Amino acid sequence: MPKFKAAIIGGGSIAGKNHIPALKQLPEQVEIVAVCSRDAGKARALADQHSIPFAYADATEMYRECRLNMVVICTPNNLHYPFAMQALEQGCHVFCEKPPAIRASEAREMADLATQKGVVLAYNLQLRQTSEWELLMRCKAEGQLGEIYHIKAHFLRRRGIPGWGYFTNKAMQGGGALIDLGVHVLDLALCAVDYAVPANVLANTYDFIGKTGGKGLMGSWDPQQFEVEDAAMAYLSFPNNASIMLSASFALNTQTDVDRNLEVFGSKGGAKLFPFSLYTSVAGELADVNFPYLEDVDIQLKNTAAFVDACLGKPSNVCTAEQGAVLQAVVERIYESAKK
Amino acid sequence: MPKFKAAIIGGGSIAGKNHIPALKQLPEQVEIVAVCSRDAGKARALADQHSIPFAYADATEMYRECRLNMVVICTPNNLHYPFAMQALEQGCHVFCEKPPAIRASEAREMADLATQKGVVLAYNLQLRQTSEWELLMRCKAEGQLGEIYHIKAHFLRRRGIPGWGYFTNKAMQGGGALIDLGVHVLDLALCAVDYAVPANVLANTYDFIGKTGGKGLMGSWDPQQFEVEDAAMAYLSFPNNASIMLSASFALNTQTDVDRNLEVFGSKGGAKLFPFSLYTSVAGELADVNFPYLEDVDIQLKNTAAFVDACLGKPSNVCTAEQGAVLQAVVERIYESAKK
Amino acid sequence: MPKFKAAIIGGGSIAGKNHIPALKQLPEQVEIVAVCSRDAGKARALADQHSIPFAYADATEMYRECRLNMVVICTPNNLHYPFAMQALEQGCHVFCEKPPAIRASEAREMADLATQKGVVLAYNLQLRQTSEWELLMRCKAEGQLGEIYHIKAHFLRRRGIPGWGYFTNKAMQGGGALIDLGVHVLDLALCAVDYAVPANVLANTYDFIGKTGGKGLMGSWDPQQFEVEDAAMAYLSFPNNASIMLSASFALNTQTDVDRNLEVFGSKGGAKLFPFSLYTSVAGELADVNFPYLEDVDIQLKNTAAFVDACLGKPSNVCTAEQGAVLQAVVERIYESAKK
Amino acid sequence: MPKFKAAIIGGGSIAGKNHIPALKQLPEQVEIVAVCSRDAGKARALADQHSIPFAYADATEMYRECRLNMVVICTPNNLHYPFAMQALEQGCHVFCEKPPAIRASEAREMADLATQKGVVLAYNLQLRQTSEWELLMRCKAEGQLGEIYHIKAHFLRRRGIPGWGYFTNKAMQGGGALIDLGVHVLDLALCAVDYAVPANVLANTYDFIGKTGGKGLMGSWDPQQFEVEDAAMAYLSFPNNASIMLSASFALNTQTDVDRNLEVFGSKGGAKLFPFSLYTSVAGELADVNFPYLEDVDIQLKNTAAFVDACLGKPSNVCTAEQGAVLQAVVERIYESAKK
Amino acid sequence: MPKFKAAIIGGGSIAGKNHIPALKQLPEQVEIVAVCSRDAGKARALADQHSIPFAYADATEMYRECRLNMVVICTPNNLHYPFAMQALEQGCHVFCEKPPAIRASEAREMADLATQKGVVLAYNLQLRQTSEWELLMRCKAEGQLGEIYHIKAHFLRRRGIPGWGYFTNKAMQGGGALIDLGVHVLDLALCAVDYAVPANVLANTYDFIGKTGGKGLMGSWDPQQFEVEDAAMAYLSFPNNASIMLSASFALNTQTDVDRNLEVFGSKGGAKLFPFSLYTSVAGELADVNFPYLEDVDIQLKNTAAFVDACLGKPSNVCTAEQGAVLQAVVERIYESAKK
Amino acid sequence: MPKFKAAIIGGGSIAGKNHIPALKQLPEQVEIVAVCSRDAGKARALADQHSIPFAYADATEMYRECRLNMVVICTPNNLHYPFAMQALEQGCHVFCEKPPAIRASEAREMADLATQKGVVLAYNLQLRQTSEWELLMRCKAEGQLGEIYHIKAHFLRRRGIPGWGYFTNKAMQGGGALIDLGVHVLDLALCAVDYAVPANVLANTYDFIGKTGGKGLMGSWDPQQFEVEDAAMAYLSFPNNASIMLSASFALNTQTDVDRNLEVFGSKGGAKLFPFSLYTSVAGELADVNFPYLEDVDIQLKNTAAFVDACLGKPSNVCTAEQGAVLQAVVERIYESAKK
Repeated sequence: MPKFKAAIIGGGSIAGKNHIPALKQLPEQVEIVAVCSRDAGKARALADQHSIPFAYADATEMYRECRLNMVVICTPNNLHYPFAMQALEQGCHVFCEKPPAIRASEAREMADLATQKGVVLAYNLQLRQTSEWELLMRCKAEGQLGEIYHIKAHFLRRRGIPGWGYFTNKAMQGGGALIDLGVHVLDLALCAVDYAVPANVLANTYDFIGKTGGKGLMGSWDPQQFEVEDAAMAYLSFPNNASIMLSASFALNTQTDVDRNLEVFGSKGGAKLFPFSLYTSVAGELADVNFPYLEDVDIQLKNTAAFVDACLGKPSNVCTAEQGAVLQAVVERIYESAKK
Repeated sequence: MPKFKAAIIGGGSIAGKNHIPALKQLPEQVEIVAVCSRDAGKARALADQHSIPFAYADATEMYRECRLNMVVICTPNNLHYPFAMQALEQGCHVFCEKPPAIRASEAREMADLATQKGVVLAYNLQLRQTSEWELLMRCKAEGQLGEIYHIKAHFLRRRGIPGWGYFTNKAMQGGGALIDLGVHVLDLALCAVDYAVPANVLANTYDFIGKTGGKGLMGSWDPQQFEVEDAAMAYLSFPNNASIMLSASFALNTQTDVDRNLEVFGSKGGAKLFPFSLYTSVAGELADVNFPYLEDVDIQLKNTAAFVDACLGKPSNVCTAEQGAVLQAVVERIYESAKK
Repeated sequence: MPKFKAAIIGGGSIAGKNHIPALKQLPEQVEIVAVCSRDAGKARALADQHSIPFAYADATEMYRECRLNMVVICTPNNLHYPFAMQALEQGCHVFCEKPPAIRASEAREMADLATQKGVVLAYNLQLRQTSEWELLMRCKAEGQLGEIYHIKAHFLRRRGIPGWGYFTNKAMQGGGALIDLGVHVLDLALCAVDYAVPANVLANTYDFIGKTGGKGLMGSWDPQQFEVEDAAMAYLSFPNNASIMLSASFALNTQTDVDRNLEVFGSKGGAKLFPFSLYTSVAGELADVNFPYLEDVDIQLKNTAAFVDACLGKPSNVCTAEQGAVLQAVVERIYESAKK
Repeated sequence: MPKFKAAIIGGGSIAGKNHIPALKQLPEQVEIVAVCSRDAGKARALADQHSIPFAYADATEMYRECRLNMVVICTPNNLHYPFAMQALEQGCHVFCEKPPAIRASEAREMADLATQKGVVLAYNLQLRQTSEWELLMRCKAEGQLGEIYHIKAHFLRRRGIPGWGYFTNKAMQGGGALIDLGVHVLDLALCAVDYAVPANVLANTYDFIGKTGGKGLMGSWDPQQFEVEDAAMAYLSFPNNASIMLSASFALNTQTDVDRNLEVFGSKGGAKLFPFSLYTSVAGELADVNFPYLEDVDIQLKNTAAFVDACLGKPSNVCTAEQGAVLQAVVERIYESAKK
Repeated sequence: MPKFKAAIIGGGSIAGKNHIPALKQLPEQVEIVAVCSRDAGKARALADQHSIPFAYADATEMYRECRLNMVVICTPNNLHYPFAMQALEQGCHVFCEKPPAIRASEAREMADLATQKGVVLAYNLQLRQTSEWELLMRCKAEGQLGEIYHIKAHFLRRRGIPGWGYFTNKAMQGGGALIDLGVHVLDLALCAVDYAVPANVLANTYDFIGKTGGKGLMGSWDPQQFEVEDAAMAYLSFPNNASIMLSASFALNTQTDVDRNLEVFGSKGGAKLFPFSLYTSVAGELADVNFPYLEDVDIQLKNTAAFVDACLGKPSNVCTAEQGAVLQAVVERIYESAKK
Repeated sequence: MPKFKAAIIGGGSIAGKNHIPALKQLPEQVEIVAVCSRDAGKARALADQHSIPFAYADATEMYRECRLNMVVICTPNNLHYPFAMQALEQGCHVFCEKPPAIRASEAREMADLATQKGVVLAYNLQLRQTSEWELLMRCKAEGQLGEIYHIKAHFLRRRGIPGWGYFTNKAMQGGGALIDLGVHVLDLALCAVDYAVPANVLANTYDFIGKTGGKGLMGSWDPQQFEVEDAAMAYLSFPNNASIMLSASFALNTQTDVDRNLEVFGSKGGAKLFPFSLYTSVAGELADVNFPYLEDVDIQLKNTAAFVDACLGKPSNVCTAEQGAVLQAVVERIYESAKK
């Protein structure tokens, strides 16, 4: 079987530390042909460092010169849409960093174009690959949870406003804690309700701490340049009466440095994700089921492999283009509700 | 100063174990004159046990024969309204068990009549008297929390559907986990936002476990007679952009037997109620402030004393008739949202 | 239904603190008519204390004067046999303290006579009534353990040689740690293998610490009067290839004050009794199942009730006469193996 | 003093990771001359990796060409005997991996030949070199334990059936959990009773989990190829009345991943090996003596050095040929008892 | 043997809760004949409550009317001296509450008079009766500590200024934290150096928190009436080069509510008192010896019995008149050093 | 700005592992020109290893040949004085290892010469650079501690007599535990009282364990060569009534391997250094303030940078020449008090 010819678009650390190393561990299936970054120097350096043949500052030139059929997009959020649309037009499979895009309409268009072109568009939401999430999905499939009717999902940092990058830039990122952190656990929560579309959304966003400035656990930040929410709180209600409580923060006056977790409540059992515990009944008594030997896995490698499996037509649990469109729409509804 | 002449309406355990012993510890201010219960035997037994002169099965008769100016109501929820209205009409101060009533309109009428009659109507929401809540209110007053913008409040039992009483009877109780347990922490959460009226409410209620039946930590219950919600989830959004996430359950597949807590997030500091911790910065560093020597107090006694203080025109932190009307209205909006 | 007319034989603390209070809680089914003790004063005092009509120093006289149909025997071990035989001859149901007797042949005769007389003979091995053991039996019945093939059972005291009573008297007790403590967990272990008769037994007994004397956690003891084993170790192998490792001690240089436990190893799952944990696989992963809310129960009351149920012909998990005969035979084989 | 000229027989990981590095740290005393493995390529690679001059596929050729006086055997168990006999015949000191052999008669012959040839034959049972075991032996020597009369020894894995190598091959290994893991703690237990020969042995072996197959903590294994015991339980009784309870498993439904420990019970004190604690009396009170600063040592290096010391006629605590013969005989008696 | 005829002088809670109940448990040896308190009503009430025949407001009258030979003094500190001198003059054995007196010269005179009269004078320093202290003394006697050369002794309360009584009254108590709390651990520390007289003393006392006022763990106190030290720090150096660091506080900004402990450092071993641990070497390794089963004892009863033993001429570990004189002298030297 | 031209005097591990790496991380400000050690080979090796141009055995030659203006002294303690005086004479800034010198008069002379020459003399007491100490100083400056009146400072090793170097050589080191370890925490304690000069000092030193010999946690030591104190205890009293309790040991029969800490007691709050906790009142309640996210920093680098800042005339918290003179004087007074 011929290998996929892949290009990396974006020259930042997520390209160099996550995506390229993961693809390199799949040498039977993928060959990285080129790196593309607006900053030609960064593209060149990254290509050299990883022994990738070509480096480009211009994607159009790259498509012209290389026969690509796979593209990985790891640019700022606002560039996901244009680069994905271009790659899909070129007939390439696309693996795009989260969030899918800035606007819901963009993610919708991207999904439609992928369908039309018959290629795979998928998103890098790697928490799906944790042993804990896979175990939760197996418990759900085996019926141990019964009907899932409520989910509490949160990704909270106490003082984790990044002191670098463009994380606080509204135009480039589209938002703050919700679109950067919250999407990870929102994606899982939506999986738990079979990616249903919420009937109602009520939400609020805040920026008290961000606008005050200070020193945090990820460096200091400039309150003048803080344009996004430092915290987002949302409630989603679904047509089948299920509900989700979602909390995300870059900064919050809470106990833990980083608290990222999901609790799932079902008619037969409940579960907490990290560490994984199942709350149910065994032999007529209330039981807590713990799994002391769950494996730590390389979730980026597994998610990249899941994307490649999808491209090969194999079963895969990667976040699909359709799911990404729903996810983006939910994010947009949360921001809209918060604006009111 | 003459003592208040008080009567107890309701002959259940909350009368005998909470209210009568508390009033008995305030002998300078209150004299319990009578007990009234539809079940004349119960009334008599209670009166005898606590050396209370009179026992009645009929309140009208009681008012006729005794010169009362204080009434404590500890009947099923659906009788709060009629007994309170009657007592207020008689010009008595009224200390009513929670929830205020079954319907928002009832609590509104009760508050209006109290105002009109110039007497005190207050509700027995005793968590306000915990050392932890009083400390939180002092921290708030001293500015240590800054502006409070988000609150997570929950009162969750894993398997705590009462196997006795009328807790699962919709007509008598008006609801389940929300109206019985949730009101306690909802009251505190509303205090934290100065009892503002929410702009929007989104909520869901559930009864999966209640309708299935089983054995719990408070006995076994009959799924056929389970007419209320076993869990209620709600999100409240306020005009000043503050928000509350509220969770209450009689039964939920979660870890802890009983988990009753409140987290408050403010612009300068955050706090968790049980055990009380303050999350803030001291000398430029993230600090956790703990209070290892907070006192365990008799919250019923303190709340009864707070009600009596209110009757005496002294400052008091008891839940007022106006607050009770707002609280009942919020409960009603949660149930209405859940019905949609 | 007429009540059983019961007598208590033995005037020690186990009569006054365990058996009489338990029977008194079953007033619908049992009426205690008499107490019998060689020490007439003790018999009288016990009867008076518990409002029991008659007291005897002579059992023959008691049978002559009272129409008994139930007897509870709580004498020193060497008197279990003669009193049980007499009671059975009288056509009484017999509830006998553990161990069944001193010799295997005695327990065999007792069982045979009970069968012949058509009455119930049962033994007071109350650990069967713990929530933990009942849960283990349910897990076994539901197949969660698969085939049970090995059991580790122990009842170890670090320094628990009783400084009172006749516990160290060989003639009266028949032995030491094994016959007094070990029988409790041996009974459970035998239940786990369906009370099979072992094919082979290998064992040793010791008395180093007992013969040295000293101060312990149950007072001081006299090494001169120490005639029994302070520790017994045994291995039982069964026809179906199952095996049991049994350890019992009054005194052993080990960590814990009292360590009483059972571990059961099966083909599908294993379990530890105190606190109860199940070791198995769930959804393909190694899982530890814990039961945080198991109830503490009054095991004496439950075991007495189980005996009464047996007398009434109802299902019961009390230790039967046949099981007692096997248990006594195993104890005897352990002592014989240790003598070689 | 001339150095020993040593050869390594066996080309697996235990040669490359344990024995060669240990010998290399004793350059004053030992020079590794050759590596011998049936697989010539492995022999060559190992020799090159460690700068060892010669590599052989044929031992006879090696003895002919190299003047050896020391041999380390790290082949599968069934080859210990032939290679050891050949080396002893050549007048070489022999350091052999555990277990000594497959059959008791082989280990006996090996010991006899070593005596006859006046050379050292020793076995690599390295737990003897832990700080904990050395401390236990010092406590024993100083009389702190008094007379040791009972030992509980176990080496239990929950799911540790190796998914690689020939560990489940009966012909090559001679057995499973007992001969591979159990021998380590059995050796220590026998040391504690001065390597007495047991008077009686009673034992059982099991293979329920091994024959079922599954995923474990050391990979997956093939139930079709599982020919050995996954668990062995044994009881040894000694002429001086001491006793040992031994448990070993590759797989068992128990709590801990790996539980390897020894408890020793003596007339004056008892001890647990990992972490080391002494249970005794001090100044008339029950005392637990803990040793918080015991050193972690390189037990392979220390055991290799102990073997070399023995070859130099110095005092040494290495497992001797005679001890090895007893150990193998006990293993054989356990397997024989289990077969009945 | 005739019983001692005893009187209690002082009518406060220490008489009623400590001394009278302890003496009542020694009915074979002591008969309480009278209670004496300046407050005649208190004396009467106490006598009635404990069935003591006589009550007096005037000690002279008491001695005239009752033939006493034992007196227990539990008055404010400033009255220890006059009442003890009077009792000794009457030829009574005297058991006096701590501290011995207010001034060193008083305690000296008291000891001299006791010697002259041939009666026992002893002080109620009950920590000597704890199981921990007795064990430490046994360890010292057995040589497990070698030569004791340094002791850290402290009795620190975080906020334990009593809100009642005369604890902050300089004239009545003679001082604060040192004389009330510090004497307990100072007595033990002096025992550890065989009650040697210090060569040098350097000390400081403080009253910052006492003079500020506030709410503590023993109520609120009045800073205006706070005349004593809230903390005392002292260093004692002995002729044999041993040294003691002593810290005592009613109030200190420290972590623990009450921290009362003693650390003893010797040439062979060291020990901490609560919980008792011995730090030494066993079998050549650093060892921590813990005593998990030390008994909780009634230290007042044991100390009263020790006083009675002394009166009977039996061996006793009660604090003697001579020791009390040294103790009081050390207290005085500490206060004098602090004044400089 | 021209860089400082620095030389390192002393060729031991503290030069190679602490000072040279720290200076190398400040390449903008400092250039290491030479290493000087009496052992020419050591000097050469160190210079080569760190690419330092010159190596000398003779400091005079070094000053002649190199134009130095900064010197770091890391020789044995007895050489601090001569090398520092020579360097200061040469007009160099001097960064000297602790303790400042052997005698108080030396440190005094050194400080005076530095003043006279107008250069910086500072000491390497790096605990000042811990995040914990800096936070304590900020709390003090912000008034959170009020007036500091007592300090407990200790640096205790259980068995930490170094088995190497000249740590037990009196002539070279000037003392033992106090001068080597105690100075670190004594320096901090003196900072807490604004480096006041004590009014009185009382102290003792010991050498029981050192003179006995043995095996410790830092190797074995030779009791014959043990000339210094293994433990020093001291009490300092200050003109403003503040006090310090100081304990230092190389060896002490205590629980912890190494216990290095400082407790500071002030009129408004108290603090413990490791881990940092503040004990105070918040909102009227006793509060413990913890700082869970304090950073681990490279204290050598920070202290070296602080010295360089001082040389550049910038604010700096490095230990000054004047403070060093006080510190040395206090050390001398402690030793003198102990000799009496």
